[in-house]
Amino acid sequence: MLRKQHEYRWEGVDLLRYKEQDDTFRDVTRQVLFRNAPDIPCEWRYFEVAPGGWSTLEHHEHTHWVVIFRGRGEALLGDEVVAVAAGDAVEIPAWTWHQFRANQGEELGFFCLVNSVRDKVTLPREEDRARFLANPKIRKFLEADNGEE
Amino acid sequence: MLRKQHEYRWEGVDLLRYKEQDDTFRDVTRQVLFRNAPDIPCEWRYFEVAPGGWSTLEHHEHTHWVVIFRGRGEALLGDEVVAVAAGDAVEIPAWTWHQFRANQGEELGFFCLVNSVRDKVTLPREEDRARFLANPKIRKFLEADNGEE
Repeated sequence: MLRKQHEYRWEGVDLLRYKEQDDTFRDVTRQVLFRNAPDIPCEWRYFEVAPGGWSTLEHHEHTHWVVIFRGRGEALLGDEVVAVAAGDAVEIPAWTWHQFRANQGEELGFFCLVNSVRDKVTLPREEDRARFLANPKIRKFLEADNGEE
Repeated sequence: MLRKQHEYRWEGVDLLRYKEQDDTFRDVTRQVLFRNAPDIPCEWRYFEVAPGGWSTLEHHEHTHWVVIFRGRGEALLGDEVVAVAAGDAVEIPAWTWHQFRANQGEELGFFCLVNSVRDKVTLPREEDRARFLANPKIRKFLEADNGEE
């Protein structure tokens, strides 16, 4: 049993770097709560984006099952920007562009379930980014990328 | 995307009976948030036990990954009675006896991930129940079974 401690940490669970490559996100931590039971070939992770931070904008073949545990923010899901808050459940199907931003002045903490065997993420190419920026809502969502706060 | 509504309900998600057989639990609801992505052969359910209620005391071969989302209570896990509160993560391995009780005056709401293909649960036999009742802590935990509140 993993007892939750203060500050959204779990006993005996390491606080990990979100990704090795660190120029695609800001202020995100990762904890792995469960991994690979005999009949569950998955990982159940907890990510927390600090206020003002964001996860990597990416897509990939593997599915994400996300449930927001704490706080609020916004997410890019395909071509949509949606508000997300504690309790919301988001399935991110294969090859759907996605990013989570804690852009509402609060932490954004969420569980994310994946298969333990999965493909690496793909980042947007120049033409993908141009397409995102051509959409005013997505541009507004992404523009925190362009400057310091 | 499943947006959480008031009262811990999700949009478009049916509020289900916990189990068909209803003499082994009290005041438990079930909602299925995710089921069977191409690469995730699982179900992600949300159970909520109303104050004073309890889930079935059972064991089975399949694994449960449980994360408490809301409130507090106690759980029987094998031979232990443990306090559980929002954020705690509990792996219930194969053939571990378990029961959740909202016996602290609050709801106890939890996520429970399982493989979509799983064995049926087994209930305690007389000799199992006698062994539980011989343990004072477990007896105290279970004794709400013995009377009306």
